Amino acid sequence: MIYLDNAATSFPKPDIVYNAMMEAMREYGANPGRSGHKLALKAGRAIYETRELLANFFNIEDPMRIIFTSNATDGLNLAIKGLLKPNDHVITTSMEHNSVLRPLKALENSGVETTIIQCDETGSMDIKDIEVNIKNNTKLIVTTHASNVTGTIFPIKEIGNLAKKHGIIYMVDVAQTAGVYDIDVIDMSIDILAFPGHKSLLGPQGTGGVYIREGLEISQMKEGGTGSRSDSLIQPDIYPDKFESGTPNMPGIVGLGAGIKYILEQGIDNIREHERKLTKTFIDELREIESVKIYGPCNIEKQAPVISINIGEEDSSEVSFILDEVFNIAVRPGLHCAPLAHQTINCYEQGCIRFSVGPFNTINDIDAAVNAIKIISKEI
Amino acid sequence: MIYLDNAATSFPKPDIVYNAMMEAMREYGANPGRSGHKLALKAGRAIYETRELLANFFNIEDPMRIIFTSNATDGLNLAIKGLLKPNDHVITTSMEHNSVLRPLKALENSGVETTIIQCDETGSMDIKDIEVNIKNNTKLIVTTHASNVTGTIFPIKEIGNLAKKHGIIYMVDVAQTAGVYDIDVIDMSIDILAFPGHKSLLGPQGTGGVYIREGLEISQMKEGGTGSRSDSLIQPDIYPDKFESGTPNMPGIVGLGAGIKYILEQGIDNIREHERKLTKTFIDELREIESVKIYGPCNIEKQAPVISINIGEEDSSEVSFILDEVFNIAVRPGLHCAPLAHQTINCYEQGCIRFSVGPFNTINDIDAAVNAIKIISKEI
Repeated sequence: MIYLDNAATSFPKPDIVYNAMMEAMREYGANPGRSGHKLALKAGRAIYETRELLANFFNIEDPMRIIFTSNATDGLNLAIKGLLKPNDHVITTSMEHNSVLRPLKALENSGVETTIIQCDETGSMDIKDIEVNIKNNTKLIVTTHASNVTGTIFPIKEIGNLAKKHGIIYMVDVAQTAGVYDIDVIDMSIDILAFPGHKSLLGPQGTGGVYIREGLEISQMKEGGTGSRSDSLIQPDIYPDKFESGTPNMPGIVGLGAGIKYILEQGIDNIREHERKLTKTFIDELREIESVKIYGPCNIEKQAPVISINIGEEDSSEVSFILDEVFNIAVRPGLHCAPLAHQTINCYEQGCIRFSVGPFNTINDIDAAVNAIKIISKEI
Repeated sequence: MIYLDNAATSFPKPDIVYNAMMEAMREYGANPGRSGHKLALKAGRAIYETRELLANFFNIEDPMRIIFTSNATDGLNLAIKGLLKPNDHVITTSMEHNSVLRPLKALENSGVETTIIQCDETGSMDIKDIEVNIKNNTKLIVTTHASNVTGTIFPIKEIGNLAKKHGIIYMVDVAQTAGVYDIDVIDMSIDILAFPGHKSLLGPQGTGGVYIREGLEISQMKEGGTGSRSDSLIQPDIYPDKFESGTPNMPGIVGLGAGIKYILEQGIDNIREHERKLTKTFIDELREIESVKIYGPCNIEKQAPVISINIGEEDSSEVSFILDEVFNIAVRPGLHCAPLAHQTINCYEQGCIRFSVGPFNTINDIDAAVNAIKIISKEI
């Protein structure tokens, strides 16, 4: 199987991820932060180690401002719902994933106002469109770092600066970039950062998190046992306990830590260059195939290793089915949980076939994909 | 290490749990329900298999009414917050965990009214106390199946019947019983059932779920990509998608399925009898030690395999520290995220030392624990 569905979840994971999780489960699989015995302490330390790795990775000063969640969606909901109050105004874009758009849509029922900036046909946004839409009650700007449909990279540092200038909170969804692109919350003026653990950070499914800058007032969505202030019926206000009720996914978080260690060992620049090279080759080859329509910037300087295409007017699911059945190539077809993005790039009816590259893909995978698309293009 | 902290999380897990998780991650670690390729389909089927296993296990008619969550707390919050509206009245008990009490306490701020039934010194409740507190606006009764502090088993079938008679929704927290005691949502008239995956169901941390009976109106707490109705900005209303936004913890859920398979292979009755036998021996032996105060019913017919004690007036953390350091026995001291339970059984100041038995404990573990307590009792 040639796996080109890394934007959905990276596969495989580095061996050290599997091994670290097995060790965590077999050797010290206790409940972290609940008891004081050796295994529980070891489990607690292992979680803290991942928190520290993430903090260093994103240049976050205090690891305790990182909250572990079950995926990026969970983190985005936590921050969006915890932050926004009736009559607050939010600016977002037409390239966002439903993990941003659906919570905002739901909040409209309680009086939150949303402005959705229209991006162009390549999925790119114009920062001026944000600025002109800022109002007195604009509390939040939330954007993706790179579109999950087209890979289009957003100018997050510029948006962060703009937000800062206007005293607006900036939240970034780094689902498609964390682990491949440099992310520095201070340099980029990011107030809230939501990330999945199981994509380019190479951790297992069931992990993710959200960083919340000190000084922001965010209410928790759920309460429960935190292993802290157990004498009280009131949720503790300290981070991360305020948001981390119940037993955490300790082996998963340990696996996420191992994923980050792998990235640090390989060098994030090397991983990025490898993925960019494959993506560039893929784009260059695809351009030569007449019936192929490529969405997005078609420019490796402007896009993450995600390439969406269609072949003529063929149904994207049909083509993906052939890629899977005949060529043993795994991709994702249809609508990618981002309906406005498909409208923006004009493939709402047809959907599109998304190829997404990971660190374990090789040039042979790209050649095989190109070859398959050539054959399918000729035959249908 | 003698591990007697199974009420916090079971340890170790059966080998088939580790193996199933490794296979899931190494062989078909794709994103379930997002793409249509072979690996994604296999991952999706694996999740559905666990849903079916759980449905059979709890006698739930439709597996799609089971929602996977990251732990039991997550499921309890989802159901409590999704169900209750301002001016609704809830009845609960003084033996509940903070995963029930803290969400209810938080909802008081939005006009939800709570009555907390006072249990007796053994942690037992009188069902009449529920009945007399039912009011016109009582929408929900929520109780534990067994206390996480004393193991005291609640008459959930009787409470279920009472709730049904009055047209009130009954929610049960089976954190301490699922996997050891028979739970039948139809026979017991349970409308909502919240369970952790990582305790007696023997799955990994990061898993849990909640069953919601058909016909109940529960709003979701979060929205996002569901792999369904991707054309829409509105969260789909179908179960389980309505509540399962974002990438699920596929390897964890597969591990949970393996845990249930292990229980089915061993026989839940055999596991229960094994744990009861150890618990009974432990209680019988502890009764002989003069300075030991045992909390709870002290009667294996009335309690799950959880035994909390204190030695004289000694600080529970200090004793647990000695158990760990000197005797290599892992237990949990202090307050167990259930403050009212500690007030109810009169150990709010001292906390208590909780021993909790799992399927892999042996009579030797119990003997070692008894011996250690005898020595500590003499020396301090």
